[in-house]
Order: sequence, then C-alpha cells, then structure tokens
Amino acid sequence: MSGAMQGGWLVIAGLGPGSEALVTPEVSAALAEATDIVGYIPYVRRVSPRPGLTLHESDNRVELDRARHALEMAQQGRQVVVVSSGDPGVFAMAAAVFEALEAGPEDRRGLDIRVLPGITAMLAAAARAGAPLGHDFCAINLSDNLKPWSVIERRLRLAVEADFAIALYNPRSQARPEGFGRALDLLRSSCDPERLIIFARAVSTPDEVLRTVPLSEARPEMADMRTVVLIGSSAARRVPGTGFVYTPRGVEG
Amino acid sequence: MSGAMQGGWLVIAGLGPGSEALVTPEVSAALAEATDIVGYIPYVRRVSPRPGLTLHESDNRVELDRARHALEMAQQGRQVVVVSSGDPGVFAMAAAVFEALEAGPEDRRGLDIRVLPGITAMLAAAARAGAPLGHDFCAINLSDNLKPWSVIERRLRLAVEADFAIALYNPRSQARPEGFGRALDLLRSSCDPERLIIFARAVSTPDEVLRTVPLSEARPEMADMRTVVLIGSSAARRVPGTGFVYTPRGVEG
Repeated sequence: MSGAMQGGWLVIAGLGPGSEALVTPEVSAALAEATDIVGYIPYVRRVSPRPGLTLHESDNRVELDRARHALEMAQQGRQVVVVSSGDPGVFAMAAAVFEALEAGPEDRRGLDIRVLPGITAMLAAAARAGAPLGHDFCAINLSDNLKPWSVIERRLRLAVEADFAIALYNPRSQARPEGFGRALDLLRSSCDPERLIIFARAVSTPDEVLRTVPLSEARPEMADMRTVVLIGSSAARRVPGTGFVYTPRGVEG
Repeated sequence: MSGAMQGGWLVIAGLGPGSEALVTPEVSAALAEATDIVGYIPYVRRVSPRPGLTLHESDNRVELDRARHALEMAQQGRQVVVVSSGDPGVFAMAAAVFEALEAGPEDRRGLDIRVLPGITAMLAAAARAGAPLGHDFCAINLSDNLKPWSVIERRLRLAVEADFAIALYNPRSQARPEGFGRALDLLRSSCDPERLIIFARAVSTPDEVLRTVPLSEARPEMADMRTVVLIGSSAARRVPGTGFVYTPRGVEG
C-alpha cells in the first residue's frame, strides 16, 4: 500500500544546460502541473513563477535535506518537481533522492516517483565543439566533496589508458582550486602535448564561451564551476579551416 | 569565403530515444525549417511529412555516403537536417559528417553547420531505472564494425577496474551475435555475481521493456540492437521495496 496521500507525486527533472530551447516538452509539462519546485537557487530561478506554484530555493551542498523535504511534500499530496541543471542522473539530484528514499520511512517507498532526463553539459558542449565524444567516452566528477582525490586520480589514469574521450564535471571551484591543476599534470605525464582540450563554459546561455587548446597550453584558470572540460581521445582532431573538433568513428587495433 | 550558396545550412540533430516528449524545442524548430531530412530509414520516418520537405531515407552502414549527400545539398543552398536517434554525437551521425567534411572539397568548409544535442539512450534508460549512473561512468560501443574486438575488451576491462558504471551501446545484432556474450564472460571473471545489470529496450516507445538482473542471471539474448545495457558500479544498489536502482554519490577511499 502506498504511503502517499491521493495525488501526490515527485518528479526529478533535468532542465538542460541553460537555454529554454533545450528543455524537453516532458519536463515543461511537469513544471506546468507542479505545486512545488525544489532545488538549488539558480536552477529554481529558471522556473517562471505563477499562482499556485511555490518555489523552494536551497543552498548548494544540502542535497539530502532538499531530497527529504521533496519526498515529505509528495507524501503529503503535493505535486513536486526537484530541478537539476543538465540531466538529474549525472552528478545531480536523482541519486540524492533515492538515497533519501532508502534512508527514510518505509511507507514512503510506494510514492509515485519519476526521473525525467535532460541534456547534460557534456553533450551540449560536445555538440557546440563538433563531435569530440564521437567514440567511447567517460564522465568523471572532479569534485572531491564526496570521494577522496585518490579515487579521482585512479579513474583518470585508467580512462587515459583506455583512450576514452573524457568529460570532467565540476573541474574547479573556490573551495577546491587544486584538483584540476593536478588532473592536468597527470594528463601531461601520459598524453601527447597536442592532445585537444575543450573548455566549454555556460553552454547555451548568454555567457557561453568555447575554447579549444592543445594540452600544452591548458591552464587551470581556464575552468570554473560553470565549465565542463572535454579531453579528446588520442584520435580527436580538428577539421582544418574550421573550428570543429571530432573523433573519427573507427579505431585502429 | 564560404562555398555555400545563399541560405544553405546543415543541422545534425538528435531525435532522442523515441518519444516526441523527449525531442528538444530546438530540434523541432530545425525540422520545421528544413527542406531536406537525411538519415537511416527508421529515424527519418519519425519526421512528419509536409509540403516542401523531402525525406531521404538510407540504409544502415552507409553513414559516410549519407553525410556527403547532406553536405552537397547544403552547399547547393538547401536547408538540411541529418537525423540521428538519441544524441548525434554519441555513436551516431555527427562524427561521420565531420569525417566527410574533412575528406571533401575545401570550399565546403565554410558551410553553416550546427550540431543539436538530444537525449541519448543511456540517460533515458538511467532515468527509467532510477539513478544507476549516479557517479562516474563511461559509454562503450560494442559494435566491432569500426574497431577490433581487442580494443573493446581492453576498454571494458579498464572500465571495470576504474569501477565506472558502464553503458553498452549496440550490444548485439544478428551480424554480431558473439560479442555481448564475451563481454558478459569478462564481467563475470572480475565482478561480484550480484552486480546489477539493467537491460533497457526501446525506452520511451510503446515497445519499452526494462529489466534488472544480477550479473549471475544476465544472458546474451536479453539484449538486441534496440537495447542499451547499463552495468552498475560496485556500489549500485536497489532501493528495497521499489524497482529503483541507484549509485550512491559518495565513494569510499
């Protein structure tokens, strides 16, 4: 038996990287039906206010509190959308909601919960650059809030060994100024200096900046928390005479 | 100087996994402006015919011919959309178009070319399952049309060593019945038998089937070319009493 009051539901929605033109119709429909929006301040501010809609803004780094609050409201019969930037399953709120669901009261587990995917930053950035993720690739969160740096370094090393294209999320913040520089040092110790690095900041917003440099010219200060960094595989190349970077589909043995 | 006739352009667009509700407004707008749609038969058939729009359907495995044709038409002043399922930069048409652009005449490089991202299969599948990609993850194309099996096997081995969640695209076809079975054997040799495997078929279409099994019960015939397979990291778990699978955000050292 469900622990939810009649009509309550929880949707965990991805708003995409910034532009309205990248919000899926399914997410727009959920936002239009919601009674409550929950999320980190800048993401909640992307939702237009309207009568009957309550906006619950919260600070960064309180993901579990936020998730619990959203679950409680849904259980009380509210129609709740938890908003994330990009895709909610990629270094965002979906995992936090399921952690809170598992840790919470059992009668909450019958709740109507749906995750709605969104355009994640690495795919928006890759599209702007050309097709740098054109073959096998991985995504690594450089934030060491929730995992030790040794795990990040190990994954990065193995990703280079596998010759994946690599997307680095949350490369650098004021609280963590060091990690991304160490990541670049690690890349320099094992990759050709011509390896292509794409710094994609605030893609699809008015603040968008895209910059492609060889590894030898990459500097830590080229990234901030609004940047996703794409590291080409060893095969990534520019189309001469254009700004496009792509990874050929075929791989030599 | 551009080699394009006035007004010609080429858009490489991702249609998402199947549902109209997952097509971004930016892709819908490009389809509404196009004079020509180019792509693999089942993807072109997702575009509604209208007066003034020519649909160019082509068979599988002719990506480069298709890309050249699209570039030629754009150069002749047509407004061309190349359609892919999912995201065009993930094992789809964007890389083929840039390969064809590089191999083609130089006066074509000034063409107006844009890539529009889409919801890729692994993110749609992950959203349905919960949050199985909730931490670092990778995407590997199991098709060995364009790369030797040894490369695939090596990447899979390193991905397991890095403890990435893993998305396997194109796991199995009639032309390649063997590879996915070998991939499962490799996983069995290095992962716990309880490791969670999600078979997500035709997500967001009327044919959608989602099935989660422990590695010990995974069988090659559970996948086909419409399936994306998600392999949980060692930390992936079910929320008891629900069908949801998620990967906790934190990682032990």
